[in-house]
Amino acid sequence: MGQFDNVTVLREANVYFDGKVTSRVVVFGDGTRKTLGIMLPGEYEFGTDTKELMEIQSGVLEVLLPGESEWLAISGKGEFIVPANVKFKLKVTTVTDYCCSYLSE
Amino acid sequence: MGQFDNVTVLREANVYFDGKVTSRVVVFGDGTRKTLGIMLPGEYEFGTDTKELMEIQSGVLEVLLPGESEWLAISGKGEFIVPANVKFKLKVTTVTDYCCSYLSE
Repeated sequence: MGQFDNVTVLREANVYFDGKVTSRVVVFGDGTRKTLGIMLPGEYEFGTDTKELMEIQSGVLEVLLPGESEWLAISGKGEFIVPANVKFKLKVTTVTDYCCSYLSE
Repeated sequence: MGQFDNVTVLREANVYFDGKVTSRVVVFGDGTRKTLGIMLPGEYEFGTDTKELMEIQSGVLEVLLPGESEWLAISGKGEFIVPANVKFKLKVTTVTDYCCSYLSE
């Protein structure tokens, strides 16, 4: 599944929803950031500050993006883009391993 | 709490106990490895391959090390050493953020 080389990793985890969603921040040489995270089964709503690329590395879940009426189903690998400054919903069915990239547009 | 610079991070998470314990591998320039992990509340038994330094970065838990009859209580920060090739038990009370270093003796 690959690796990130020559990066900085923050020791402290981000913890959301009583630990059902957690992530670690990875900082790249150009100053950009990604988080590597885990979501346990559950339903969640998140807000974005920047545009985000969410890469699902493994897991079964559905995503409701802003302005959409249909849930997007992902099983195994998949990805979706979330615009800046919106909320989106997730229904996570199995333990989900993800990588989120924060994009400057 | 600090950070690790100039490291490699593996994208894929380690997942144990249905995702109640997860970790990410960090590889240092000298080839040594640490994992940054999260444990949700629960009782767990782990086995070691190498000697391990477990640094609890935050959390409330108890540890039963091999050969001991008394549980070691940690609340907040703490650390303990586990020898190679043994099993040890954990009772985790709150979401626990840890860093595990794999030592070559």
